[in-house]
Amino acid sequence: MDAHKLEGTDRDQALEALTGHGWTLVEGRDAITKRFVFGDFNEAFGWMTRVALVAEHMNHHPEWFNVYKTVEVTLTTHDMGGISNLDVALASKMDRFAG
Amino acid sequence: MDAHKLEGTDRDQALEALTGHGWTLVEGRDAITKRFVFGDFNEAFGWMTRVALVAEHMNHHPEWFNVYKTVEVTLTTHDMGGISNLDVALASKMDRFAG
Repeated sequence: MDAHKLEGTDRDQALEALTGHGWTLVEGRDAITKRFVFGDFNEAFGWMTRVALVAEHMNHHPEWFNVYKTVEVTLTTHDMGGISNLDVALASKMDRFAG
Repeated sequence: MDAHKLEGTDRDQALEALTGHGWTLVEGRDAITKRFVFGDFNEAFGWMTRVALVAEHMNHHPEWFNVYKTVEVTLTTHDMGGISNLDVALASKMDRFAG
């Protein structure tokens, strides 16, 4: 997938869709974040594993913090200094895998 | 494995061994932390997966933050309000799996 930083209307529409799914902009960084809460560690790490396979395939990786059943994710595209179409694609996969 | 909070000489000896392997005490919490750096995401997440299986088996889970090839781990035993033998055991497994 070709990466490009989101700007203008594309960015507005993408952010509107993401915030509708619980993502928020990170203060002080051009990045999005979401806290996923699962039933237990098995579910949380199982989800992380599914995401990891997709992330590796995309060659686009999350920043994420896990403790037991909770995973806090931050997405941005370091190479582009902000939110790109890759972040939107990965966020969408994360939401889908979380059911 | 029976969990017990480390105290006295047991604690001193355990912390000495851990700091010799790059673990440090967290400021303001009774917890230990270490930053593991791997070759790439594949190696980092592969290591996390091995640790996750052991953690689940021990029913003792890390706090960890991953971005690409780096994993920052914090270990403490919430139930006991501090560092326990479970943290020492999990730290030892982490070090061993990291080679």
